[in-house]
Amino acid sequence: MPNSKISNGNYFEDFTLHKKIIHPLPRTISEGDVSFYIALTGSRFALHSSVELAQSLGYKDRPVDDLLVFHMVFAKSVTDISLNALANLGYAEVSFPHPVFVGDTIRLESTIIGLKENSNGKSGNVYVFSQGYNQHNELILSFKRWVMVHKKDHSLSSGIKEIPYLETTQAISDEIAIPPITAWDISQTGCGYFWEDYSKGERLDHPEGITIDNSDHTLATKLYQNNAKLHFDDFMMKASKMGQRLMYGGHVISICRSISFNGLGNAMWLYAINSGTHANPTFAGDTIYCYSEVIDVIELKRKDIGLLRLRTIGLKNITPTEVTQARDNDNKYYPNVVLDMDYTVAIPRLNK
Amino acid sequence: MPNSKISNGNYFEDFTLHKKIIHPLPRTISEGDVSFYIALTGSRFALHSSVELAQSLGYKDRPVDDLLVFHMVFAKSVTDISLNALANLGYAEVSFPHPVFVGDTIRLESTIIGLKENSNGKSGNVYVFSQGYNQHNELILSFKRWVMVHKKDHSLSSGIKEIPYLETTQAISDEIAIPPITAWDISQTGCGYFWEDYSKGERLDHPEGITIDNSDHTLATKLYQNNAKLHFDDFMMKASKMGQRLMYGGHVISICRSISFNGLGNAMWLYAINSGTHANPTFAGDTIYCYSEVIDVIELKRKDIGLLRLRTIGLKNITPTEVTQARDNDNKYYPNVVLDMDYTVAIPRLNK
Amino acid sequence: MPNSKISNGNYFEDFTLHKKIIHPLPRTISEGDVSFYIALTGSRFALHSSVELAQSLGYKDRPVDDLLVFHMVFAKSVTDISLNALANLGYAEVSFPHPVFVGDTIRLESTIIGLKENSNGKSGNVYVFSQGYNQHNELILSFKRWVMVHKKDHSLSSGIKEIPYLETTQAISDEIAIPPITAWDISQTGCGYFWEDYSKGERLDHPEGITIDNSDHTLATKLYQNNAKLHFDDFMMKASKMGQRLMYGGHVISICRSISFNGLGNAMWLYAINSGTHANPTFAGDTIYCYSEVIDVIELKRKDIGLLRLRTIGLKNITPTEVTQARDNDNKYYPNVVLDMDYTVAIPRLNK
Repeated sequence: MPNSKISNGNYFEDFTLHKKIIHPLPRTISEGDVSFYIALTGSRFALHSSVELAQSLGYKDRPVDDLLVFHMVFAKSVTDISLNALANLGYAEVSFPHPVFVGDTIRLESTIIGLKENSNGKSGNVYVFSQGYNQHNELILSFKRWVMVHKKDHSLSSGIKEIPYLETTQAISDEIAIPPITAWDISQTGCGYFWEDYSKGERLDHPEGITIDNSDHTLATKLYQNNAKLHFDDFMMKASKMGQRLMYGGHVISICRSISFNGLGNAMWLYAINSGTHANPTFAGDTIYCYSEVIDVIELKRKDIGLLRLRTIGLKNITPTEVTQARDNDNKYYPNVVLDMDYTVAIPRLNK
Repeated sequence: MPNSKISNGNYFEDFTLHKKIIHPLPRTISEGDVSFYIALTGSRFALHSSVELAQSLGYKDRPVDDLLVFHMVFAKSVTDISLNALANLGYAEVSFPHPVFVGDTIRLESTIIGLKENSNGKSGNVYVFSQGYNQHNELILSFKRWVMVHKKDHSLSSGIKEIPYLETTQAISDEIAIPPITAWDISQTGCGYFWEDYSKGERLDHPEGITIDNSDHTLATKLYQNNAKLHFDDFMMKASKMGQRLMYGGHVISICRSISFNGLGNAMWLYAINSGTHANPTFAGDTIYCYSEVIDVIELKRKDIGLLRLRTIGLKNITPTEVTQARDNDNKYYPNVVLDMDYTVAIPRLNK
Repeated sequence: MPNSKISNGNYFEDFTLHKKIIHPLPRTISEGDVSFYIALTGSRFALHSSVELAQSLGYKDRPVDDLLVFHMVFAKSVTDISLNALANLGYAEVSFPHPVFVGDTIRLESTIIGLKENSNGKSGNVYVFSQGYNQHNELILSFKRWVMVHKKDHSLSSGIKEIPYLETTQAISDEIAIPPITAWDISQTGCGYFWEDYSKGERLDHPEGITIDNSDHTLATKLYQNNAKLHFDDFMMKASKMGQRLMYGGHVISICRSISFNGLGNAMWLYAINSGTHANPTFAGDTIYCYSEVIDVIELKRKDIGLLRLRTIGLKNITPTEVTQARDNDNKYYPNVVLDMDYTVAIPRLNK
């Protein structure tokens, strides 16, 4: 008989609507994590590279990269939410209301906001609203996600079908936690393009590609304390249909964000992730490329920054110039497409 | 003629009984080391993840993981003790008398406490008592180990046979350097089981497996400044019987400890390592699993914590549920068993 | 039509003599970077390992390893100078005038000091003088390098041939930014040899070898934010003559420096790199070895330290004892030679 002290994660039946979960394992983010993130992604956004530059923009210190915060916080939810997940189906309403600094300790709480049993009786979708806080109880990350989770008992059916309303884009707030920008030094940030320079419909083929090896993505996932087995356990995965460890989808997001620096170097802040789809799996040895489309150019009340809504298509083993669109005529993703992410970034305006 | 400035390490003849060695290369442990250790092992013990949690338990800062301290300190002894070792034969009386914090500088001193020439005339066993200190000369780690070391001259025999007495378990002290525990928050530590919940003879099959690649274990060993060639030099090892780089056994210990979190999440402190055997070699690509047996449940005078003496069996490429015991009927380790470690952990009591 | 916001780097025609370039992306060096550098190289020089030791030598903190500074600063120049380089032809006059500490933010400025169009009309050599500064505008690194860069238009010829004068060795200054050495503890530094112990013509065969995997060298290059594609993009490189990712030459320099510890353990300071040649490419799986020749023993006015001019020959997959010289009778490097570096180190004197 299995020892009851071993946690095997939650199954679909274990979730109840409106249930609140306090996820364990708060994490202090350190200078070591910041260096590791740069080593894993090659990220060059100047705000996260230089304390001097961050302070010249009104920060007390360089803020931690938004995606590093996302991965650290997200990982806290794996044990409770997605240890028995068949698939991460999507993200929505991901926002970054408050910067995180080195030394901050982040934690996560979630509420179950939707449950839908699948007709095959074997699984169900769980919709979760998660909120990350720092040690001062300031909200630093908010997101919704839904995952398909195994059922324990395939013979019993609850017939539950409570699907929450999800925004297709994050609402635009007038309060954005970016200090007022009074000066901007192109010679420091490495990019001479600002909010006014971008147009709806514009496409950027980012030229760089980054190949990911097994140590890279497993070090990343372990650093985040994300304990989803399929990323680490090659012995188990060799016996699966995939035949090898699956790369954490968040790592692909980070690599694409890093590659997008060439063309979007001044877009230093993630305002929101509106939706994200891991279109195809990524494995060690794959080279990631991406291109970005400007979906919308959003003006704010404050005139020092504006927003760009972007769609970044992550690719594997094909350069963006060879790809005209992400989906085929049947609306199916092409096999080399690995990420379809709709997100909103903040970028300074010329007339700052 | 070889240049005499090149150090080739000590041979059996170079050791004399009671000789004291001050090992060079003190090391300051930084936030970078702490992050690296999490990335290498995926460790989730909350005490080492969160400054807030550590401070709520009475620490000034989060203490450094006991095993990271062990690897850092142990590595200091390689050049002097085990550069010409044929085998690391065992550990005993490993204790962690004082916590180490980020910013502390650790150093190591050793005394030769035993020497036994082997009958084949080619090697001998060296028994060493090592003590690690911080910059305030506080003892932070104490351990004994014995290694089989090559002789320079196979024709000469000293016949020396001085075998020290070694405790089979670390003596239990009334003074344990853990602050008094007045409250414990399960929602933070991720585990609802305490000292009273564990019984002698109980077995925990930890479900997670972690695959280790070459970059992982070589980054680990280089981080620790452990310069034992067989871990790094693939060209040399390809010409050896092993045919490839051998993984540092300490990395396997760390991976097993990290995996044991699921079932032993509140056992945040290593009190002692009573003995440890690397039963079979581990190589890149191996997936490590483990199970733990509760050998003893030890009550202390203080009533806020207790001790568990554990035996953790590390496995490669086989899950614990498939393994009933570590050794066959001839008392030989099965080929998939890589670690047999007897150690003692501290864990809070329910009536804290 | 390609989007003009994408930077494709400069071509030979884009450079003009005496042009000054302020390279973007200042970088704050953290404890995380220091740990990463040790993990990547296994470096054991005590000055960079221990705050206590550094302070005992008169430093406020442990200074950052000179080569880590070099890689971080050098990387800033890649986008502007060498993104379209066919080859890094050489380095000269690399000096380290001021120590860098954790928390310092480094930046880089360059001047084009020479331009020579190649007779084939397809490329030209660009000579660059680069100077790195900390946040207090103190010069922390100065170097010259020359690279062969593609031309955009092969039909037009400028015939430019302005070759700058380059010193073959860095001039010896009386002002060396090393605190006066009043005591030296061999038991800490792990090496008992000093300036007076080394002789011109002496050779040191360093016994250690380090095998480098893809994750190691790509993590290194990404950590430095060096975005030269040929190090990261395996998909692109598979289609090239090399057939795989090329290791960053600077990583080979660091590995050789780390290996040279055994024989040169007290030579803790890089005074200058006089010249450096990457004689053959290095790829994942190669094991790096090296030997060092003492080219010169240089006395200084101050009597607590002296300089050694060294030539270190980096090798792949062959041990130094098997190699008598780096070049064959036609003055061509042997295929296993990967580095020929002429550099000057500072080392304490016995009569300190």
